[in-house]
Amino acid sequence: MKIDILSLFPEMFEGFLHTSIIKRSIDSKIVEVKIHDFREFADNKHKKVDDYPYGGGQGMVLMCQPIIDCLKTLVTPQSLIILMSPQGQTLQQSTSVQLSHYEHLIFICGHYEGFDERIRDYVDIELSIGDYILTGGELASMVVCDSIIRLLDGAIRETSHEDDSFSEGLLEYPQYTRPYEYDGHSVPDILLSGHHENIRKWRLKQSLLKTYHKRPDLLEKKEFSQEEIKILQEMKEND
Amino acid sequence: MKIDILSLFPEMFEGFLHTSIIKRSIDSKIVEVKIHDFREFADNKHKKVDDYPYGGGQGMVLMCQPIIDCLKTLVTPQSLIILMSPQGQTLQQSTSVQLSHYEHLIFICGHYEGFDERIRDYVDIELSIGDYILTGGELASMVVCDSIIRLLDGAIRETSHEDDSFSEGLLEYPQYTRPYEYDGHSVPDILLSGHHENIRKWRLKQSLLKTYHKRPDLLEKKEFSQEEIKILQEMKEND
Repeated sequence: MKIDILSLFPEMFEGFLHTSIIKRSIDSKIVEVKIHDFREFADNKHKKVDDYPYGGGQGMVLMCQPIIDCLKTLVTPQSLIILMSPQGQTLQQSTSVQLSHYEHLIFICGHYEGFDERIRDYVDIELSIGDYILTGGELASMVVCDSIIRLLDGAIRETSHEDDSFSEGLLEYPQYTRPYEYDGHSVPDILLSGHHENIRKWRLKQSLLKTYHKRPDLLEKKEFSQEEIKILQEMKEND
Repeated sequence: MKIDILSLFPEMFEGFLHTSIIKRSIDSKIVEVKIHDFREFADNKHKKVDDYPYGGGQGMVLMCQPIIDCLKTLVTPQSLIILMSPQGQTLQQSTSVQLSHYEHLIFICGHYEGFDERIRDYVDIELSIGDYILTGGELASMVVCDSIIRLLDGAIRETSHEDDSFSEGLLEYPQYTRPYEYDGHSVPDILLSGHHENIRKWRLKQSLLKTYHKRPDLLEKKEFSQEEIKILQEMKEND
């Protein structure tokens, strides 16, 4: 996969691109990520990228020219152009899965100002990462890239996906590691029993319990197995 | 405000802390942000921070000892301890507003692995930034910090908050700046009319239209003014 990111703050991406799974995925050529400073495309001598809004109002507005001219140097028939914007559809895990199948993604990041509406004419989708206000699209685009890159073949061990939160519509069960006792809190005895089937059942029940208490909305969307239905009925009777 | 972040990847935060509004807010002492590598607190000679899960299973689990011992050096009665986790409550703009009133926030970032459940006993709240899987809590904690810091007094110009998306429960109206015409697309004439009241009405209508088409769920939560109700009725009649 190829990813191009248009941003006025390329230096913000340094740490992200040079750490852990993302770094490894770039080093092993699973993904290629390039950051483009669209200020370089401004066709005025001061390399100005914003201007006052037509019709008046607070703040400045990013001009369409530098962004669109930068876009035009990158886009191919395989590209999907994504505008990071609070007005976009909210990212979900299913969105990341869909996006992970594209050959080429181009992200446009605004920064605290608004942008000229005409930029939207060149964009395939608008994405938001949630209903909160950020100073720019940079962190948001990193979040989207992170969630996509980890899904690419070879980025992380295949089996690691299986236990992920949300991947089966339930929150993850409680995990414990050494020491057995810390600060007066010890590991549940069942996990030391060596009885794999009981451990599996306990974990499934804990997952259901956690989801029920913390994110009941996830249960509404989920299709349950016979075993899960039985556990839920037992939980209800004990309530 | 004081912010401490516990992470195994302090270098990931470099770009974030040294760019734009966050850098300015740190430079002008509106906020103090410190990153703590909790690996330094591991009490074993190899500075190991994770181990196999009790009861078996894929992957490794972050041990409680390094994180909790690091926490204990930072916490005061004024601290709010936040665990970044997909199991947490989903960040909303209202959450950021609430958090912006605290004197001291401590963030704990896990990284792709799970963490020992006993860490939860030391935490005040668990936060998620959305229903998607990330390789770690680092980007998520930056997103939360970004949304909080920009709300602190002096971080950005006061008036800039007013036009923000979501701040009045509507998406922002379309913005335009120079040039008047670009690539065959021109600025709506009303914005050049100089008639402030008509421009204000046009923008309000555009905000309502955008929200209606892109995020109808926001309208369900909103309390409308008389003027907004009138515009919505006109929109309905013209539909």
